[in-house]
Amino acid sequence: MNNMADARRYFELPSPFRMKRGGALIGARLSYETWGELNAARDNAVLILTGLSPSAHAARNDIDDSPGWWEDIVGPGKAIDTNRWFVICANSLGSCKGSTGPASINPQTGELYRLDFPELTLEDVGNSAFELVFGLGIERLAAIVGCSIGGMSALGYLIHHPGSARAHISVSTAPQARPFAIAIRSLQREAIRLDPNWNEGNYDDDHYPETGMSLARKLGVITYRSAIEWSGRFGRIRLDPEQREEDPFGAEFQVESYLNAHARRFVRAFDPNSYLYLSRSADWFDIAEYAGPDAGKEPGAAVRAGLARIKLERALVIGVETDILFPLEQQQEIAEGLRAGGAQIDFVGLDSPQGHDAFLVDTVRFGAAIGGFLAKL
Amino acid sequence: MNNMADARRYFELPSPFRMKRGGALIGARLSYETWGELNAARDNAVLILTGLSPSAHAARNDIDDSPGWWEDIVGPGKAIDTNRWFVICANSLGSCKGSTGPASINPQTGELYRLDFPELTLEDVGNSAFELVFGLGIERLAAIVGCSIGGMSALGYLIHHPGSARAHISVSTAPQARPFAIAIRSLQREAIRLDPNWNEGNYDDDHYPETGMSLARKLGVITYRSAIEWSGRFGRIRLDPEQREEDPFGAEFQVESYLNAHARRFVRAFDPNSYLYLSRSADWFDIAEYAGPDAGKEPGAAVRAGLARIKLERALVIGVETDILFPLEQQQEIAEGLRAGGAQIDFVGLDSPQGHDAFLVDTVRFGAAIGGFLAKL
Repeated sequence: MNNMADARRYFELPSPFRMKRGGALIGARLSYETWGELNAARDNAVLILTGLSPSAHAARNDIDDSPGWWEDIVGPGKAIDTNRWFVICANSLGSCKGSTGPASINPQTGELYRLDFPELTLEDVGNSAFELVFGLGIERLAAIVGCSIGGMSALGYLIHHPGSARAHISVSTAPQARPFAIAIRSLQREAIRLDPNWNEGNYDDDHYPETGMSLARKLGVITYRSAIEWSGRFGRIRLDPEQREEDPFGAEFQVESYLNAHARRFVRAFDPNSYLYLSRSADWFDIAEYAGPDAGKEPGAAVRAGLARIKLERALVIGVETDILFPLEQQQEIAEGLRAGGAQIDFVGLDSPQGHDAFLVDTVRFGAAIGGFLAKL
Repeated sequence: MNNMADARRYFELPSPFRMKRGGALIGARLSYETWGELNAARDNAVLILTGLSPSAHAARNDIDDSPGWWEDIVGPGKAIDTNRWFVICANSLGSCKGSTGPASINPQTGELYRLDFPELTLEDVGNSAFELVFGLGIERLAAIVGCSIGGMSALGYLIHHPGSARAHISVSTAPQARPFAIAIRSLQREAIRLDPNWNEGNYDDDHYPETGMSLARKLGVITYRSAIEWSGRFGRIRLDPEQREEDPFGAEFQVESYLNAHARRFVRAFDPNSYLYLSRSADWFDIAEYAGPDAGKEPGAAVRAGLARIKLERALVIGVETDILFPLEQQQEIAEGLRAGGAQIDFVGLDSPQGHDAFLVDTVRFGAAIGGFLAKL
């Protein structure tokens, strides 16, 4: 606890912590926050795994009153009701919001890991979160919630730890990375890597890959929203003359200044090497790896077989039609596969206009679905 | 005619050639190619206006036997049948494939224009093409065809030159730039502008904005195709180990190497400043500017009113459902507006999986629609 009223706690991972693709971390930790109380039966815990960049601060609490990234969903009387549930949110392994990642000190060298950080997969993110939950004395989660690539991490968690959760809430994610999403993430990584200031990962505050991070973030924002939302929101509205830059190709339309504002907020707030590691881990994720030899040969069979190995009582699978990065069809694949594994499925396909980001914005409808599902547990 | 068997001809534009947003070009020219013969009545001419980067070489001809960018559509017995039609394709003003643009010599200084080239609009592209057609002795086109941003140029041509064409073929374009497309083009331009080698437009072959052009092209390719096509075509196929780069974040999936190949072919083949000028001109285009004071206030009314001022006998409006850059809804707006202007409309919405590029790839279905339409003229 420092004077910034930081609500983060830290969990020391077992050391060494072995990584899926080889290598191990020594003395690594996860940062996390909690809300509500674990009951005596220890059966009311809900774990939230995040998208690429959020911290563990999903909502305000007694220590840190600043709004969290899922403020409208998590709290007393809200969809994830902290009067009933003991809620845990972990910052992903490999991130830079308190958990060990490329921007952490490598205890074996005393230097920052940078690119010496071992190859990171979302299964490692899931496994590290499992250690946290186990370390908190919880044998079985009431539910595991995964948003965006956190949904992939949750699938990794569940496949590697049978019986570790009664229920699952899968939010705007995918059972495997498809080539369109791979192409976009690859281009984001390339923008960072081609920035001379990236310098093979050896940047510092004075020589920082601002340009690459800004381009990557803008491409992210473009793919996180939707054309239809922006047509209604920005149309062809132009900036006031005094907001315009001198540059003949500078921002002229409101949508361009919106992208600029998003990029400005992000560029120095997230570690570029962490971004590269987590982005690549999403491309690698493929539940079909777990299909086993008996999966059929038709398209989708291995994905379905991998998912069917996950045993749950219930799952809510939710996504939106306007999501171009994690399309609704992939939510349907998840629903179908988990159902084949024996789970009772609630499927919700929303027509929210906000695209992939709808779970952060259209919280009324996401909240209704999530709250309704949790009420049935 | 040089020893490269170059079929380009050159048309000297009236000098000065005045530009919509101010300024004028002295001694400017357009490069163009033709196929077939103009008949005695001079009423069988079809003009093709291109997307952002193609040259005037739409198809092979007697002089240049290399395949053109619309080879499967233009030729004897093909959809645009050069046995019947006298076909003209112009390289856009501002481009770098023979027409005057930022990479041309400014006769007033003896230096390259670079950023001294006047601000370019797609109306200027249309007006310059009108001068070419008029200069060839054609008072009225049988049809004007516009593909992608060439469709915007065609609308500019038609609105400024009433009675200049009997029919119009509008291919995967838009009556105005919407914010999603603006955001993508703005980001492409930014990738070029932020490349230190762009140097405010003062690059040369030894200091060339390779990185920016490569990122811009890759983002272009991503938005020109579709997720569904790539899922079928690339899936999660990985490169062979010997094709992999040493770089830990280098290309690993086939889709990444596809993007690399596209970028490599483009980067040195198109002038970066021309790219910036033409890209910006697409963002600026808005047929609603021509709506007049009586247009209604509801969304889309000004677009419809602008289009309704264009008087045609017939129009074919064609696009595809998977196009994220020029969505089918915008093709419907064009159809509706031209119909309000009195044209008889054929509307074709295809489910081709290739996205915006489908008109270059799914030439069987595009050809059937275009050929069928022209047969009715």
